[in-house]
Amino acid sequence: MRARSFFLSTLKEAPADADVVSQQYMIRAGMIKKLAAGVYTYMPMGLRTIRKIEAIIREEMNAAGAVELLMPIVQPAELWQESGRWEKYGAELLRIKDRHDRDFVIQPTSEEVITDIARQEIKSWRQLPVNFYHIQTKFRDERRPRFGVMRGREFTMKDAYSFDRDEEGASKSYDAMYAAYQKIFTRLGLMFRAVRADTGAIGGSRSHEFQVIANAGEDVIAYAPESDYAANIELAEAFSVLEGRQAPAETMEKRATPGKEKCEAVAEYLGLDLLKSVKSVVLAADRVNEKGEPMPAKIVLVLLRADHELNEVKAGHLPELKEGFRFATDDEIMQAFGSKPGYLGPVGVKEDVAVYADRTVADMSDFCCGANEEGFHYTGVNFGRDLPEPAVADLRNVVEGDRSPDGCGTLKLQRGIEVGHVFFLGTRYSEALGATYLDENGKPQILQMGCYGIGVTRLAGAAIEQSHDEKGIIWPDSIAPFEAVICPMNYAKSEDVRKAADELYEELKAKGVDVILDDRDMRPGVMFADWELIGVPHRIVIGDRGLKNGEVEYAARGNLAEKIMVKTAEAADFVAGRIRK
Amino acid sequence: MRARSFFLSTLKEAPADADVVSQQYMIRAGMIKKLAAGVYTYMPMGLRTIRKIEAIIREEMNAAGAVELLMPIVQPAELWQESGRWEKYGAELLRIKDRHDRDFVIQPTSEEVITDIARQEIKSWRQLPVNFYHIQTKFRDERRPRFGVMRGREFTMKDAYSFDRDEEGASKSYDAMYAAYQKIFTRLGLMFRAVRADTGAIGGSRSHEFQVIANAGEDVIAYAPESDYAANIELAEAFSVLEGRQAPAETMEKRATPGKEKCEAVAEYLGLDLLKSVKSVVLAADRVNEKGEPMPAKIVLVLLRADHELNEVKAGHLPELKEGFRFATDDEIMQAFGSKPGYLGPVGVKEDVAVYADRTVADMSDFCCGANEEGFHYTGVNFGRDLPEPAVADLRNVVEGDRSPDGCGTLKLQRGIEVGHVFFLGTRYSEALGATYLDENGKPQILQMGCYGIGVTRLAGAAIEQSHDEKGIIWPDSIAPFEAVICPMNYAKSEDVRKAADELYEELKAKGVDVILDDRDMRPGVMFADWELIGVPHRIVIGDRGLKNGEVEYAARGNLAEKIMVKTAEAADFVAGRIRK
Repeated sequence: MRARSFFLSTLKEAPADADVVSQQYMIRAGMIKKLAAGVYTYMPMGLRTIRKIEAIIREEMNAAGAVELLMPIVQPAELWQESGRWEKYGAELLRIKDRHDRDFVIQPTSEEVITDIARQEIKSWRQLPVNFYHIQTKFRDERRPRFGVMRGREFTMKDAYSFDRDEEGASKSYDAMYAAYQKIFTRLGLMFRAVRADTGAIGGSRSHEFQVIANAGEDVIAYAPESDYAANIELAEAFSVLEGRQAPAETMEKRATPGKEKCEAVAEYLGLDLLKSVKSVVLAADRVNEKGEPMPAKIVLVLLRADHELNEVKAGHLPELKEGFRFATDDEIMQAFGSKPGYLGPVGVKEDVAVYADRTVADMSDFCCGANEEGFHYTGVNFGRDLPEPAVADLRNVVEGDRSPDGCGTLKLQRGIEVGHVFFLGTRYSEALGATYLDENGKPQILQMGCYGIGVTRLAGAAIEQSHDEKGIIWPDSIAPFEAVICPMNYAKSEDVRKAADELYEELKAKGVDVILDDRDMRPGVMFADWELIGVPHRIVIGDRGLKNGEVEYAARGNLAEKIMVKTAEAADFVAGRIRK
Repeated sequence: MRARSFFLSTLKEAPADADVVSQQYMIRAGMIKKLAAGVYTYMPMGLRTIRKIEAIIREEMNAAGAVELLMPIVQPAELWQESGRWEKYGAELLRIKDRHDRDFVIQPTSEEVITDIARQEIKSWRQLPVNFYHIQTKFRDERRPRFGVMRGREFTMKDAYSFDRDEEGASKSYDAMYAAYQKIFTRLGLMFRAVRADTGAIGGSRSHEFQVIANAGEDVIAYAPESDYAANIELAEAFSVLEGRQAPAETMEKRATPGKEKCEAVAEYLGLDLLKSVKSVVLAADRVNEKGEPMPAKIVLVLLRADHELNEVKAGHLPELKEGFRFATDDEIMQAFGSKPGYLGPVGVKEDVAVYADRTVADMSDFCCGANEEGFHYTGVNFGRDLPEPAVADLRNVVEGDRSPDGCGTLKLQRGIEVGHVFFLGTRYSEALGATYLDENGKPQILQMGCYGIGVTRLAGAAIEQSHDEKGIIWPDSIAPFEAVICPMNYAKSEDVRKAADELYEELKAKGVDVILDDRDMRPGVMFADWELIGVPHRIVIGDRGLKNGEVEYAARGNLAEKIMVKTAEAADFVAGRIRK
């Protein structure tokens, strides 16, 4: 490609609403252009990267035996009603009406449609296993779209759906996709981790996320440097940090703590160790009676050590909360505890409040907590003596230094961007939609499903978050919009330079290098700044001075300081040899 | 590809609502699957064809210097309001609201978005010309989706938009796209015609449709076998079929024609030549007064010779009708003519009715027409004597035998399916959205635009309409889901057959042939029927009998009767040589 036949458009500054580096650089490099909140045009430069990502995914999906099809973007509501997601999905599901006032959705995923296809197409065990995928536009009507292509509303996703005879087969399909994903993200040139993830409301037993490691990531990954353990912090099991509970040594006392609502303030005021304080978090699960009328919410008191954080996913597994929950309102708290927040605790709570202690709290003794009376806390509190033994559960986020759930050393934390997800679905959709096959005995059996997603457009953003510097993007070779750029100095006026640049351009093309020749004849500083921003990984500068010595200058985008002079005749081989295929 | 690793699904019968051959065969061959009215899943077999069509289009668009990008499917209403199409587009434009109650559309085309991009990105004449295209999902909420993928609601279109400094430049861009389209449809292996087309409400001066010739086409093409003239019948100019007007020879008489409302019935009843009868068609254009309140519609009487058909596009060019029109209601007709339909005519009509005679009618004398009184017609009517000379316009469809507008012989008609359209837009959108560039003198100038569409998914249907037989589809090599199929007889049990089939499969793959090996081990009749239905153009049958002579059997889908025995060792070369690349 020659730059003048392409469409280059760079900006010196990113718009003020670009909130992460990848978004800023993609806009500045002319890769994306915002059309509406969370809706972007992929400009020619950006589309090249997206197509390369898609091609790698497609090759590895095909190699893993998956079969590509293309399901529609606009899907009829009936299927979503059958699966129950029409009601459950919430406002992110964009619901639309056609001219005949019939309900449709713009697909956020395609479980319903593929299961509908399966129930019509899959008749016999002989057709199994089968794994369908498509690479298609999705829409999720995020309340607050942000981070550019990483949390947009319209985006491209590869979603695959496997159908198997039984859990054993589904497990093999899952493993095949897990292996394919490892290959895909490796080929994309990314540092990533496959981490265990929560299976959420869908149920099912296995789920892994593929996380691209990046400081800007929204997810936190807990991993054990001494083993291959890695899990989303949502899932990572947290043990008690104490070695069993000490016997009570203090008596329970009620202490005035006027205006001290935070554990830290209370501990400081009373001169206590913060690690002896228990934090009370009040959650509420809305309920209806048999007639479907709203009832007062079920109130759940969760106890955490003051320095620990509530893990909402884990809380969602508590029996009282598994249908969904929220934080209790001040009114509900006053009603249930007789006190405003800031002074709450487990001592003497009403019977209809469920109390759960995190594992660490269950091992605490002589602790401090609110007295359920404004301006007062208790100290020297002990389970079994001052209040009943609590129900115990894992309710907190792990922290660095926690022991690894697999027994190998301790955990570390890092941030990641979820770019892929493999998920054992079981019969969640096949049962709802009645998708069965006939087994060898002619008996109908429910299909076992798995689903496997990759955020295609998000990957472009994640790659940039992982790899950039103050000048711009540093693309991995495999997904750079161009693998190499030729920057000729004085292209219009120097015949030598033009000839050398044109020749090298043709040679590189002949070697299969995806090269762009910058024939715009701009000042070197402007030209270099453009390509450093765009992040093309291999750059060849051709100037009269070098040509006098029969040389051109090579630099890798990841190491611009190291400029290598290469014989002109060997330049094409040199560059081609540097590109990681 | 091996059939067992792919997903084959054929049906013996098409669903009852499949109304054209292409739809029936695509469903039966497992290429598409209906999800909702006009919304289809492209099954693995169908997607292969779509991808091949896309690849050919992409290559030729790139070769013609167009630059690919990807504009969003969901587009904000504001841009459509700016262009005026939010109001004008009608119910086919699917309007949606997001969670914040903001208006969006699902794009039927992207003129607004690309013009918005151009007004931001194109600053200087140095950036021109530029031609952007994308291959993207579109949605048109057709009132009555039909003909499978040919008039669906969700479909894939390639749409390109050129930007130029002036009309001369735009004309060059137009010509480049016209030439690229010729290459594209030739490579797709289709019989097609580029025909002049109406420029419609958009205005502009040049427009060509690319029509795939097929009896099932919705469009009628008029062409001159003696020249390269070809036009959509909507546009093809019709001349008078008479050689000037004869002098009056009869007197005007009022004749009772009780219950005779059709020209044919009147002519038969009165014993007249039908070609002496004039048909009256009453059209109405709705109007509003200065306050925007509805006024009685403007009534237009169009006169056609009885055997001719009204051309609504041409009628739409009449000054009274150019803002849109409809057929008048019975009430409006009674009001304007004092008679019910069936007895209408131009004699003595009120002054506020505009009267237009088609060119042929203007040359008629002594003709018959309604008397504007139920049960009566006039005969022997003559313009200039019995009624004023009429305004004259070209208002009818051409018929076979009409003289060609380019003066070369006479016209023939054939049916076609519109699969592409090149259109000179001028400043329709650039002016509405204020898309300008700075010329050499630093003065802002309005961009000149062209738009160029190809119906990607429709092309699959059109190709089938053009090429099929009673057994199924006959694909052109370039867009067949597979170029060749190997049908081994007794694949599971005959080791010789399996070995020969596997070897030929590998050889063909090595030669770059897109081949599928049918390893399903089905009965020959079932296997052949499947591939004849699917329409793979080259078939190799391998059986023990032929192998004994060292031979396999080749047949082309287009000529199954001619079975050619080929030496096994030469089979790969033979098949590869038959494929039109």
